[in-house]
Amino acid sequence: MQLRHLRVWFAIATSLLVLPVVADTPKATPTAKELIAKSKPEEWRTPDPENLLYMQLPQGRVVIELAPDFTPLHAANIRTLVREHYFDGLAIIRVQDNFVTQWGDPNDDDNGDKSKIKPLGSAKHTLPSEYTRAIDAKLPWTPLPDGDVYAPQVGFSEGFPTARDPASNREWLVHCYGMVGVARDVAPDSGNGSSLYVAIGQAPRQIDHNLAIAGRVIEGMPYLSGLPRGTGPLGFYTQASQRVPILSVKLAADLPPAQREKLQVLRTDSSTFASIIEAKRNRHDAFYTLPAGKIDVCNIDVPVRTESPAANTAH
Amino acid sequence: MQLRHLRVWFAIATSLLVLPVVADTPKATPTAKELIAKSKPEEWRTPDPENLLYMQLPQGRVVIELAPDFTPLHAANIRTLVREHYFDGLAIIRVQDNFVTQWGDPNDDDNGDKSKIKPLGSAKHTLPSEYTRAIDAKLPWTPLPDGDVYAPQVGFSEGFPTARDPASNREWLVHCYGMVGVARDVAPDSGNGSSLYVAIGQAPRQIDHNLAIAGRVIEGMPYLSGLPRGTGPLGFYTQASQRVPILSVKLAADLPPAQREKLQVLRTDSSTFASIIEAKRNRHDAFYTLPAGKIDVCNIDVPVRTESPAANTAH
Repeated sequence: MQLRHLRVWFAIATSLLVLPVVADTPKATPTAKELIAKSKPEEWRTPDPENLLYMQLPQGRVVIELAPDFTPLHAANIRTLVREHYFDGLAIIRVQDNFVTQWGDPNDDDNGDKSKIKPLGSAKHTLPSEYTRAIDAKLPWTPLPDGDVYAPQVGFSEGFPTARDPASNREWLVHCYGMVGVARDVAPDSGNGSSLYVAIGQAPRQIDHNLAIAGRVIEGMPYLSGLPRGTGPLGFYTQASQRVPILSVKLAADLPPAQREKLQVLRTDSSTFASIIEAKRNRHDAFYTLPAGKIDVCNIDVPVRTESPAANTAH
Repeated sequence: MQLRHLRVWFAIATSLLVLPVVADTPKATPTAKELIAKSKPEEWRTPDPENLLYMQLPQGRVVIELAPDFTPLHAANIRTLVREHYFDGLAIIRVQDNFVTQWGDPNDDDNGDKSKIKPLGSAKHTLPSEYTRAIDAKLPWTPLPDGDVYAPQVGFSEGFPTARDPASNREWLVHCYGMVGVARDVAPDSGNGSSLYVAIGQAPRQIDHNLAIAGRVIEGMPYLSGLPRGTGPLGFYTQASQRVPILSVKLAADLPPAQREKLQVLRTDSSTFASIIEAKRNRHDAFYTLPAGKIDVCNIDVPVRTESPAANTAH
């Protein structure tokens, strides 16, 4: 592949569907990739290792960033479960197409062996729901300008897509692709973090503020989204052999620094992120005949990169 | 699994994330499944076999309904390609996470052997773009009441999610999950249907009216969405062995009636579909503490069922 072609590939980012045979110079508007290349080191943050889960699957590692400013009790309970090795040896039990991939204890459903349910150790069995929280004026908040079907306002705080309702003074994380939620029974306080799910299709916004969101997958999403769908009701795997085993889930903080992923997340209150929003609202490359001029909160992935040596020295 | 539990499972449809341990009677609002069970035979249509593609993969069959009222020239060209066995022996060449699965001729990209590109036969190499069309007042149109980030109006026509702009008198199919689009080069008339893609993540609405949409997957979507993601740029598979072979693509009309799938699609101008929209806007089962009261056009899957003997006699 020629570099000339490669550059054009990336200039049109996730939009191009066939390799271009022409290489006209795109208009001057920079792409997200170009904006990231020009970003400053201080526009990136290294997530707190107390908030990073490493879920090791046979195929590879999934990294999840917890969101304790939104769901602190769930983050604390999940940390307890992880530190007591609760998830090690459990499995992905369900993949429902265009909805969620869910993991937890296979014995904790109707077809499981109730006598073998893994105990939660010192973790709590029930938690306050934490579906929404009072708006925190101290949280950085980058609102989007184009409205939303479901919420009065949408935007980003601390790397997560969020919604706000000034009338009720509430804010909440929203179920965009890659967001990790806390499964529960019917009782609102029945979620405890021992079973988690990730959104793998169209954002299921109807479950916003009906479930607690624990965080977001920042690496390894294809290991959760690219799995065969379960054929049982709600996408449950019908045979134990279909389940993907969870080898371990660890907290980054419990690993020696040298063993931690060198991941950085673009600050959503940075000027580069603001420029990316604009670039995604109005794509002015050769491929687009008509830029949308709008963006949905779930059509923006917050950029994640592997920390570069240059970034290290800059800090 | 007890029937009592099963009923509750379905009553809460795609919402429940852990098996309920209580079985309180849900409120009276019917669910989509209950509404479908009560629907009348005449509310379902059997798609025209001239508009149905059967794509046979090793894992199973994918059924695509073409949308000739929106993209007639593309539908005609795709029929020509199919009838001349163009797709037989080609492959799924690309799966980009949270975007598209694409299929076509592996030799028609930068790493392919250009000398082996499969000829298009009597199909056209270029087509008018057909991204949008003049609003057809004769088309049945079921608008949604909750607005849209990207378009002035959204709704459904003939089983497909659509958008309208009365100011410009244009309407177009939108890129919801499962919609099948026509890949192209940079030139707007360079799409011809020889390479197609399907949306597999958050609806990529930014490519609306920048690409022609040929139709919708009405069966077998998990065979396209549940594939390993490609690791090359834009999700292309980097090795030939990773590609999923297309055994054949046939038009239902070219098969004897006994070999056709007995699929029916709920009419989107039916009263049952209108009731389903309302049920999805306001979910009043025991699981939801706060129904959304809203719905995005891409959060409604148009129901598809296998034709029942009763339905046969009713027609």
